[in-house]
Amino acid sequence: MNDHDRDALPPEQIVAVLGAGQLGRMLALAGVPLGFSFRFLDPEAHPPAGAVGEHIRAAYDDTDALTALIDGALAVSFEFENVPASVLNFIADRLRARSALPPAPPAKALAVTQDRLEEKRLFRTLNIPTPRFMPVDSRADLDRAGADLGFPLVIKTRRGGYDGKGQFVLREPSQTDACWSELGAACESDRGGLIAESLVPFIRELSLVAARSRDGSTACYPLIENHHSGGILRKSIAPAPGVSPDLQLRAETHARNLLDALDYVGVLTLELFEVRDSGEEWLIANELAPRVHNSAHWTIEAAATSQFENHIRAITGLPLGPTAMKPAVERAFMFNLIGHAPTAGEILSAVPSAHPHLYAKAPRPGRKLGHITILNPTDGDLRTLESLSGGATG
Amino acid sequence: MNDHDRDALPPEQIVAVLGAGQLGRMLALAGVPLGFSFRFLDPEAHPPAGAVGEHIRAAYDDTDALTALIDGALAVSFEFENVPASVLNFIADRLRARSALPPAPPAKALAVTQDRLEEKRLFRTLNIPTPRFMPVDSRADLDRAGADLGFPLVIKTRRGGYDGKGQFVLREPSQTDACWSELGAACESDRGGLIAESLVPFIRELSLVAARSRDGSTACYPLIENHHSGGILRKSIAPAPGVSPDLQLRAETHARNLLDALDYVGVLTLELFEVRDSGEEWLIANELAPRVHNSAHWTIEAAATSQFENHIRAITGLPLGPTAMKPAVERAFMFNLIGHAPTAGEILSAVPSAHPHLYAKAPRPGRKLGHITILNPTDGDLRTLESLSGGATG
Repeated sequence: MNDHDRDALPPEQIVAVLGAGQLGRMLALAGVPLGFSFRFLDPEAHPPAGAVGEHIRAAYDDTDALTALIDGALAVSFEFENVPASVLNFIADRLRARSALPPAPPAKALAVTQDRLEEKRLFRTLNIPTPRFMPVDSRADLDRAGADLGFPLVIKTRRGGYDGKGQFVLREPSQTDACWSELGAACESDRGGLIAESLVPFIRELSLVAARSRDGSTACYPLIENHHSGGILRKSIAPAPGVSPDLQLRAETHARNLLDALDYVGVLTLELFEVRDSGEEWLIANELAPRVHNSAHWTIEAAATSQFENHIRAITGLPLGPTAMKPAVERAFMFNLIGHAPTAGEILSAVPSAHPHLYAKAPRPGRKLGHITILNPTDGDLRTLESLSGGATG
Repeated sequence: MNDHDRDALPPEQIVAVLGAGQLGRMLALAGVPLGFSFRFLDPEAHPPAGAVGEHIRAAYDDTDALTALIDGALAVSFEFENVPASVLNFIADRLRARSALPPAPPAKALAVTQDRLEEKRLFRTLNIPTPRFMPVDSRADLDRAGADLGFPLVIKTRRGGYDGKGQFVLREPSQTDACWSELGAACESDRGGLIAESLVPFIRELSLVAARSRDGSTACYPLIENHHSGGILRKSIAPAPGVSPDLQLRAETHARNLLDALDYVGVLTLELFEVRDSGEEWLIANELAPRVHNSAHWTIEAAATSQFENHIRAITGLPLGPTAMKPAVERAFMFNLIGHAPTAGEILSAVPSAHPHLYAKAPRPGRKLGHITILNPTDGDLRTLESLSGGATG
């Protein structure tokens, strides 16, 4: 290396991320302007985040690759919650050995969110309302759940489900055999078991995205209204229409209690059901995601600081940025592009004020290929985008 | 390659850029969300854009590297104007041979902006006022310039100068020897010669940043007020305060005439002097930059579409996005970080509403290491940022 090279070496600060999907891609797009560079580990050949950082292609449990991933990194984070405990421990030990910042979010948060039963128990400990629930570890437990909690029930694998996978809606006792034959294998040894939850008759689904910095300060985004279809998020609206200050405050209180209880660092998402009981609105916690969340992608254009920038700020020890809507943004809509994505040209020609985000992934049924955000849209814009995105439904 | 890999191959569209500095870095940050991936050629070991795309490290005239750069690319562009004609011809020939889109901006625009004399002649052809000027190819020409144009004069190399380099302000005949000994070498064969221009007593420096799409439609940003020191841009203010609709329209007309005359594709910047004559404001063209421009970095946060996104949209054949200020943004300020850059933490702690942009370059005197944008700032914010950025001066 000659003098010229030495001089050109950047004072770069590396953020290492396990997983290189679209969340990693958007984290890098938010973090690079702050002076960070990104390094990802992902077994895929061409993951979305590979375009905006160094990509180490290896299995998640490849210890040589993990060592290379975190080498010299200022901060280590995860793009998804199902990080194996062995991987997490390996990383945490190595970081501790060199007195580096611990991984963020912390191991405790990942452990809790990897197990729906632990998650529900944490909600209960923090006085956060949840659907009634009980663990199911055997066929006998499944029968007992119907008897104890009543019908309808949702039976879910405690570990590893996502986008509606690993769930069965049990409406009456006669469906118990079908449910068991679909999900019973989860009760074999080391598979984590099942959880039974009362099916909540909710008005709508909401999410509260919040961040906590290394010094313990917190910030919450406005509540978001979410529309799913086939178990996959199709559309988000922010701020969720018709949310009272009281409801927002209740959601934020829940989120702050969770952030503090988990000694959390980074962005955390609380998925909620809004229910009406005796004429009053209530929030019931559904689940936690220890990461930036699909329902808050609109924050890139519409919030003073995006969820991605705030996650990077939090894990690198920077102060959090403001989470309010940008001035003059009354409402932001986000449409997911699932399975098929129009081109940027098709989107911009149809709706010039739309903001396309394409993840450069190969099309596959049910796959999230991109999203479109629009601010203060007209009814016509919304109709066009519903149609372009393949018909987001309530 | 197994089936899994084939499935994972992204339908990526590559944008190839000659040069991988901060402009390339910000082009990629704007273009990746649209689904493009970036490939850069740059001789530096760790150029700023290397963090957000593939970096081919090679000399700009390495034909193997140039071939690799443009291989399969949807669009080919340049981050700087001093691309050697041989390189430009090589690229244009190769693209033509495979019926690909020609490089953007077009060769003609680069040729004109590489020669200050050609540039001034183009201004004159299009009825765009310029300082009085004449070519200087010898010591005798230099004497004649003083006699014909009067003093003070600015003597500039016709080719290759930037950030105030290659210029001499000639205030009186007695300085002619000093001027000639500093710049006379430019008149040796093949060095391009000099140009003499009348020094214009301007009120302030402005720039007009405009874009033209492949189908010929154009869009202009609001006029920007620029403050230089030591020949380097220190601060930009947008929209430039006190600009009448008539002045804006005049600047836009000049820019559109230039864009059309050059059959331009991409972002073009027209640097202007505002002068007052007989109580009326006039615009005098100083020079052209065939690229995104330092004075418009504030468009990332403050304009409906950033200059970087509009350049990418233009060269990839997408429709241009709106160039107005975002709603509720009355004024944006941009401060350059020259030679020394505070960290993102120092910037955000001092001014929480600031937007730091750090380029991950090694510090060196006079080097642009980053910039800070702030919207609708208080006087206190501005004082803090002037101080943090090392004292931007008017």
